[in-house]
Amino acid sequence: MNPLRAVDPDFERRVRASFGRQRFMALLGARLESLAPGRCVVRLAVRPDLAQQHGYVHAGVTSAIADSAAGYAAYSLFPADSSVLTVEFKINLLAPADAEELIARAQVIRTGRMVTVVHTDVHGLKAGVEKHVAAMQATMICLHDTPDAPATRS
Amino acid sequence: MNPLRAVDPDFERRVRASFGRQRFMALLGARLESLAPGRCVVRLAVRPDLAQQHGYVHAGVTSAIADSAAGYAAYSLFPADSSVLTVEFKINLLAPADAEELIARAQVIRTGRMVTVVHTDVHGLKAGVEKHVAAMQATMICLHDTPDAPATRS
Amino acid sequence: MNPLRAVDPDFERRVRASFGRQRFMALLGARLESLAPGRCVVRLAVRPDLAQQHGYVHAGVTSAIADSAAGYAAYSLFPADSSVLTVEFKINLLAPADAEELIARAQVIRTGRMVTVVHTDVHGLKAGVEKHVAAMQATMICLHDTPDAPATRS
Amino acid sequence: MNPLRAVDPDFERRVRASFGRQRFMALLGARLESLAPGRCVVRLAVRPDLAQQHGYVHAGVTSAIADSAAGYAAYSLFPADSSVLTVEFKINLLAPADAEELIARAQVIRTGRMVTVVHTDVHGLKAGVEKHVAAMQATMICLHDTPDAPATRS
Repeated sequence: MNPLRAVDPDFERRVRASFGRQRFMALLGARLESLAPGRCVVRLAVRPDLAQQHGYVHAGVTSAIADSAAGYAAYSLFPADSSVLTVEFKINLLAPADAEELIARAQVIRTGRMVTVVHTDVHGLKAGVEKHVAAMQATMICLHDTPDAPATRS
Repeated sequence: MNPLRAVDPDFERRVRASFGRQRFMALLGARLESLAPGRCVVRLAVRPDLAQQHGYVHAGVTSAIADSAAGYAAYSLFPADSSVLTVEFKINLLAPADAEELIARAQVIRTGRMVTVVHTDVHGLKAGVEKHVAAMQATMICLHDTPDAPATRS
Repeated sequence: MNPLRAVDPDFERRVRASFGRQRFMALLGARLESLAPGRCVVRLAVRPDLAQQHGYVHAGVTSAIADSAAGYAAYSLFPADSSVLTVEFKINLLAPADAEELIARAQVIRTGRMVTVVHTDVHGLKAGVEKHVAAMQATMICLHDTPDAPATRS
Repeated sequence: MNPLRAVDPDFERRVRASFGRQRFMALLGARLESLAPGRCVVRLAVRPDLAQQHGYVHAGVTSAIADSAAGYAAYSLFPADSSVLTVEFKINLLAPADAEELIARAQVIRTGRMVTVVHTDVHGLKAGVEKHVAAMQATMICLHDTPDAPATRS
């Protein structure tokens, strides 16, 4: 993997502001732990109200943080006046997410003017031990000259 | 599509009980609207705390209800003493989910002893008009002789 | 599904010319059977040299014709001076392709200026009976103002 | 990644025999270059008759060798009397495969009794330089007590 370079020197502030506007991340209790050009880590403390029928974390929660991490890994590389959208993703649930915390680590594997491809691994943390619970491959698109904020609620 | 047949005559009660154990669906405000052998519809009223950075529904929310609908469409066909797990899914986000309600309609397209494949379409409803916002293709697995409830909290 | 409209009245000639340049389709013996705006059918006679280890059609063959059908369903809707590229696809192999012929039917489910999403079903035909052997969901991109031919062999 | 262990000491002979039965790999000119428990490398010399419309390698060819590499990475870990089937895969085409050779490197990322998940990267080699052209995430299933050979042509 070649080192990736951010064209916007202020990318961290821009990405963190956008993550802060994702009200669903707040509902889940997810936080943006760390950021670098083409990389993003999102972390979540597991709660009982995030569970599926067996008491493990719902695949939708795992997908949500993996998708946000992927989107912001991509967005860190985009120009300042752009916005990011998820075109699609595919996720394999590798093991039941029986964990105290989930950590989603995203890494851009291909970036272009329009299309950026990101891989995200999600690990569950329990009693200090990490377990690989999900792997996502996602396609993001860069909307150039598009403000990254709600259009109708300024 | 051939009509699908449920081997468990009591499938509806079993599926609704399992959905009722998915605490994450309650957090989202999603409800299981309707059920038939190999089909399931999940419905959600959109709220501001389900939003991504542009104010539309987060892809993780759309994925969560599409995955639950897919899982229960599959589970409706499974035997009484089994459980269902998502192996993987792929979702295309077709349009921003700018909607008052989301409706996820799942349909089994292949069922086997172990592997079941499901297609889910998600539509957004706004001012009485439906718009296609996402399409998911998911792979579910049947765990035979496995109770569908938390192991450690009986 | 709303009826889709081709912006290029000469789309059929353009698509068939592009398919004719896909030398790999000729190697497989695949042919473009029919075409309509947003729809494409590719057909293949099964041969022993297309097999995987059990004697059925290799997943790569099934994927190849499903991908070509998807790409040309999308390309039928594109403007005259454009080109089409596959961004990604996901395919479920639903049943062993134990067949005399394979028929890949692609249908655009979302079209936009850049991104087009296509669903392809592949059926195997044996003794006059069709069996659903694969389902693909693919993302295509439109390259505007890009000739659809090899750059270096004019 | 923990080191993976093959339960069948004779896995290499078994995998190479199965690859040798894939007549489609012979048609493509693909060869199994190397093998280790949970890993497989397949290599292909690019030919004009493997091309799509722009003269690059067809996505179906890239998918075919990535899928075979993934299947045999999984199969190396399976017991002696089993067989392997592709349940599904997702592939991102990262760059046009403008290359003299393609190299598909597969690595198992999760193995279980039934379901095994594999990641395959495909690189194009041109003038001694490698370029990342595709990334696949695939789900394989283990058929226990199933001979890995054509049923009807013994």
